[in-house]
Amino acid sequence: MRLVLANPNTTGSMTERMASAASQVAADGVEIVPLTSPYGPPSIEGFYDEVFAVPPMIEAIRDLGGPVDGIVVGCFDDTGVHAVRAMTDAPVIGICQAALQTASVLGNGFSVVTTLDRSVPALEKIISDYGFDRHCRRVRAADVPVLELEDSNSGARNAIEGEIERALEHDRAEVVVLGCAGMVDLSVELSRAFGVPVVEGVTAAVKILEGLATMGLKTSRRRGYAPPRSKVYGGAFSGFSPE
Amino acid sequence: MRLVLANPNTTGSMTERMASAASQVAADGVEIVPLTSPYGPPSIEGFYDEVFAVPPMIEAIRDLGGPVDGIVVGCFDDTGVHAVRAMTDAPVIGICQAALQTASVLGNGFSVVTTLDRSVPALEKIISDYGFDRHCRRVRAADVPVLELEDSNSGARNAIEGEIERALEHDRAEVVVLGCAGMVDLSVELSRAFGVPVVEGVTAAVKILEGLATMGLKTSRRRGYAPPRSKVYGGAFSGFSPE
Amino acid sequence: MRLVLANPNTTGSMTERMASAASQVAADGVEIVPLTSPYGPPSIEGFYDEVFAVPPMIEAIRDLGGPVDGIVVGCFDDTGVHAVRAMTDAPVIGICQAALQTASVLGNGFSVVTTLDRSVPALEKIISDYGFDRHCRRVRAADVPVLELEDSNSGARNAIEGEIERALEHDRAEVVVLGCAGMVDLSVELSRAFGVPVVEGVTAAVKILEGLATMGLKTSRRRGYAPPRSKVYGGAFSGFSPE
Amino acid sequence: MRLVLANPNTTGSMTERMASAASQVAADGVEIVPLTSPYGPPSIEGFYDEVFAVPPMIEAIRDLGGPVDGIVVGCFDDTGVHAVRAMTDAPVIGICQAALQTASVLGNGFSVVTTLDRSVPALEKIISDYGFDRHCRRVRAADVPVLELEDSNSGARNAIEGEIERALEHDRAEVVVLGCAGMVDLSVELSRAFGVPVVEGVTAAVKILEGLATMGLKTSRRRGYAPPRSKVYGGAFSGFSPE
Amino acid sequence: MRLVLANPNTTGSMTERMASAASQVAADGVEIVPLTSPYGPPSIEGFYDEVFAVPPMIEAIRDLGGPVDGIVVGCFDDTGVHAVRAMTDAPVIGICQAALQTASVLGNGFSVVTTLDRSVPALEKIISDYGFDRHCRRVRAADVPVLELEDSNSGARNAIEGEIERALEHDRAEVVVLGCAGMVDLSVELSRAFGVPVVEGVTAAVKILEGLATMGLKTSRRRGYAPPRSKVYGGAFSGFSPE
Amino acid sequence: MRLVLANPNTTGSMTERMASAASQVAADGVEIVPLTSPYGPPSIEGFYDEVFAVPPMIEAIRDLGGPVDGIVVGCFDDTGVHAVRAMTDAPVIGICQAALQTASVLGNGFSVVTTLDRSVPALEKIISDYGFDRHCRRVRAADVPVLELEDSNSGARNAIEGEIERALEHDRAEVVVLGCAGMVDLSVELSRAFGVPVVEGVTAAVKILEGLATMGLKTSRRRGYAPPRSKVYGGAFSGFSPE
Repeated sequence: MRLVLANPNTTGSMTERMASAASQVAADGVEIVPLTSPYGPPSIEGFYDEVFAVPPMIEAIRDLGGPVDGIVVGCFDDTGVHAVRAMTDAPVIGICQAALQTASVLGNGFSVVTTLDRSVPALEKIISDYGFDRHCRRVRAADVPVLELEDSNSGARNAIEGEIERALEHDRAEVVVLGCAGMVDLSVELSRAFGVPVVEGVTAAVKILEGLATMGLKTSRRRGYAPPRSKVYGGAFSGFSPE
Repeated sequence: MRLVLANPNTTGSMTERMASAASQVAADGVEIVPLTSPYGPPSIEGFYDEVFAVPPMIEAIRDLGGPVDGIVVGCFDDTGVHAVRAMTDAPVIGICQAALQTASVLGNGFSVVTTLDRSVPALEKIISDYGFDRHCRRVRAADVPVLELEDSNSGARNAIEGEIERALEHDRAEVVVLGCAGMVDLSVELSRAFGVPVVEGVTAAVKILEGLATMGLKTSRRRGYAPPRSKVYGGAFSGFSPE
Repeated sequence: MRLVLANPNTTGSMTERMASAASQVAADGVEIVPLTSPYGPPSIEGFYDEVFAVPPMIEAIRDLGGPVDGIVVGCFDDTGVHAVRAMTDAPVIGICQAALQTASVLGNGFSVVTTLDRSVPALEKIISDYGFDRHCRRVRAADVPVLELEDSNSGARNAIEGEIERALEHDRAEVVVLGCAGMVDLSVELSRAFGVPVVEGVTAAVKILEGLATMGLKTSRRRGYAPPRSKVYGGAFSGFSPE
Repeated sequence: MRLVLANPNTTGSMTERMASAASQVAADGVEIVPLTSPYGPPSIEGFYDEVFAVPPMIEAIRDLGGPVDGIVVGCFDDTGVHAVRAMTDAPVIGICQAALQTASVLGNGFSVVTTLDRSVPALEKIISDYGFDRHCRRVRAADVPVLELEDSNSGARNAIEGEIERALEHDRAEVVVLGCAGMVDLSVELSRAFGVPVVEGVTAAVKILEGLATMGLKTSRRRGYAPPRSKVYGGAFSGFSPE
Repeated sequence: MRLVLANPNTTGSMTERMASAASQVAADGVEIVPLTSPYGPPSIEGFYDEVFAVPPMIEAIRDLGGPVDGIVVGCFDDTGVHAVRAMTDAPVIGICQAALQTASVLGNGFSVVTTLDRSVPALEKIISDYGFDRHCRRVRAADVPVLELEDSNSGARNAIEGEIERALEHDRAEVVVLGCAGMVDLSVELSRAFGVPVVEGVTAAVKILEGLATMGLKTSRRRGYAPPRSKVYGGAFSGFSPE
Repeated sequence: MRLVLANPNTTGSMTERMASAASQVAADGVEIVPLTSPYGPPSIEGFYDEVFAVPPMIEAIRDLGGPVDGIVVGCFDDTGVHAVRAMTDAPVIGICQAALQTASVLGNGFSVVTTLDRSVPALEKIISDYGFDRHCRRVRAADVPVLELEDSNSGARNAIEGEIERALEHDRAEVVVLGCAGMVDLSVELSRAFGVPVVEGVTAAVKILEGLATMGLKTSRRRGYAPPRSKVYGGAFSGFSPE
């Protein structure tokens, strides 16, 4: 089985940390194929960055040879996930949806701890769209830029721990969700430290896709995720034209 | 890894079919431990039956020796799932929640096809509680008693196919969910026949639990799923007293 | 008119206090028939206890001779209320639903004060299911075990008063709902003390059932509350088999 | 106990039919005080009529001497119910809220059958405000003007029966609610004819108020239903000035 | 183009301030016709006042000669807006709906700052009815009676500023909505002072109506806003009888 | 005043028709600046096309010299509207949000008629996000590809009229919304033909922006629409790097 782990930003070190976490949970015989966006934003911090992260991610997925059994979109905004679902009948999941589904099995309510305040509204929109607005107590920002998560000396972890404490104390959360791909390697330690499940979405997404692929389930091609109608895109995007 | 597959009704043939489906998708090294309720209702068809299905299922789970890495509640009402979560920190999922989460990854809306009209309100309640009321277009009853699903000559499959057709035609569903454990072995063929994902929850639940166990995630013990307070139950239920 | 007041736990003193309150509001000619569960949990504190409270309560109701004009389920979790509705066409109501309906007539928003944190998620689920999630500002736990409410020296009342104060100050509540059967005799005094309606559900349920019985309204037998299909339950539960 | 039954329209024959139904269910010692609006619209059919129904109803209530233990607003739009609650601490309920609460105890979902299409949006708004949008399957109009309900030869009953049939067949309703005060005397016969609870709100409201009065519960005076601030209204409405 | 600005209270100085603000934003050739209710409450502070504000406003609108291209209801309760829509096919909007729609274009969430606590529940009801319950973080009361807003020495502005600060700090609001017509002239300065959009509804409503009139769009006369059925109102309200 | 009308697809004839409609409603002194995406998809039909429509639209907006007082995103998916809001403090609105707000002023419920079935789920998501899920009765597809709307002989209009008829007959809609920029010039005639408001979003958006600009209201820069953090985008997208 071959699962793509697509990082829609260009920061290879983040892809590596995600791939490493993914590999630790992947079943025997599952190949994790990490993709880093070949161009575009180095981190996705709000609505604007998101826009420029999707075409490069799609290009990387499109150009990958060989069969694919599932695709993880490795950004907590689930950037471009609907478009990728329309590209292929292999199942596709973003790390936000994966984490929220996981959290909702483990407790009666959760809070999300993400990086920056400016990212919160985009998350609130997809949390609601996925059906988890009643389960999600609050989306908290630790006021940590995404790339500081790459630097273990940045104080980012302290800030995240502070928000987890507040989530447990004030939000009546039973579970905590880490709301950024860059927090991928903190979940095990933080679960231990706080004595509650601290969920991150990369590993969750890999296991969900393994499951879907094993069950032979594929994205529906009726209505919303039907293959794009054949048309010729103009200019710089002509290479993305749907056949 | 050792996953319990608890059938809360007493019909062993249904447990066997569930266990067989579960085994086909389980990863190498995963042991599926099927449990059939030792007493109680032979099928769960509505609110009344549900009540009498839970203590025997809990008894079977409690009496099972050895470590457990996850528990599937094998009834689409997710009968007793909250109580089981309070018993243990191993992750627990019902086949309804597992199927709905799976369906919501594969398409933008789904309909559920269940057995009897009288079961529909109980399902509508948990679908809403899980957050999928906006994703679920409709819960349809095929007017087939649960145990007719054990008899391959019963015409049950025809009735189910009729409802799937109506779901695709009238409900604007992109995915179909089979709303009864007794339909466990129909999903692959029906997916093929209708050209859309037809999801059933037993296999979905097994893969979700494998994922949780691999990630080391356990049920939160804060608030709602805290261990039951120690007390002495009276009479016939004294054996269930929480320590 | 003969109304059953079923306490699903085994604590007779709590039944007595409930029956006393019920009798004080019952119309002339209304007989309150108190039932205490003959076995099972002495108090219901969360999802696990709930499971073991229902069969004994149903047994007590089933074994009661004579006509019945309505049934109160005397636990704020409304434990087993759907199953009891399927048993009989006499109207049935739990004290949570009764209290919430009452509160929503008296003000524009209410908070619930219950016993323990672990009971809150179960209450949030039924509050939402009954349609009152927008009216309910918050479910507060006073951190008082249920049976301490039987002991007038326990400090329970102080803790409850503290939460009422916070509800009025912080939750913008116009009404307070007492979220445990064990608080049945506090509502009158607390209403007076705080100058707002403090609603409890036992008396509310009795008056709602009196009304339904007088109007000749019975539980619908279509779909969800249709009589259970006839089947033979196995073993210890054979006596509960629906005819 | 003295309960006011306020008909906000000027049609005395409708008040009489309501009062007759109310008296049949009222407990011994309960006096029903029927009030017909002294001026204004003879029937309330949509948003415009509603506006002119409230001041006369309030005038009639205000001018009534003696103690009052509760007030029914006898129009399914619950016309002016919030204003009346602010006038007095006696409990107040409209027949729509009373009927919906009653229906939600008797089944898992209901449809409302009202008079005219133009009244439906106003009802949908209050049904949602009361929290019953998920319980209410549909509001159906029988295309019968309100005052035709006063004429037993009008064919109105046939039209209503047709909509009840459609509600049971197409809406998956378990209970039917009659959505106009003018239908007050049809509920018993229609319940019998259709074999499901057919609820009307006048009797339901009387029994709910009896309950509240017996329990000593009054409208909250905090926030939304605080007594109106003292001020002098100008001109024709000076008599309504809050003291 | 001729737009009516109807103040449903009798305080002419408030109408003047509204008309002045309206004129400053009206396009060339747009005539603002201010109407002050000829009788009734001098300010609208809660459910009771509202009732007596609508007939005089309707009378003023009805008696106005000449063509009308749109009508603003100049009270944040949107008092009587549905009735006015049924009177005419000219488009009608209340300042609450106008302000909320405006706010939802400018940010991802807003808080409303209104006058008195007692007005909050009425606002919460219409905010939810208009679809903005998920966008509205909170309705805050500055504890300022409406007519103190007419007095520039009243300290009202300080109180409003305090609530805006709290909205930005605690509610995660990106936009602030002023929840009373009497605050009409504060929005520009407060926007500047706080560096976020502070929206008020009078000017917003004028511009929305200009747009509708220019596009030739009129209120739908199907169903809810169909012209009132012809009938004779009794007594003091006979002049309001729909033809 | 200078308003940008950005067509995110590359079909200039559609831009022209939109600009022509916009000019007919624009106030004196308002300049409509039409922009056609310089490259990318010629029409947006579902999630995939959407992705490739945004960078070219942003490029066109970015490269436009001179002051801008507001920006219309001229596609009913409101493609990229959140990103554009983060680019500038000029107000920005998509034609879907503009049309839905307009429709909700004119009636109590509306249906949307769009082009293709595959576009419906994307619309349902934003309709819900904007708060109009309870007002929107249904999104209907006329089964007409977008570019057939450019061809007056295509039969597209017939198909749209058929869906409008069904919306009025079956959906209980009081207003109809045209769900594609390509339908921009049909609204006036269809309003006349069907006797209900038929709303399209281009003209609505222009008038809303005129209003915002006149009032001096700008997009909030707090949280979600804060300016993108300065960073260097890699490769082909380097020109989009936020400063």
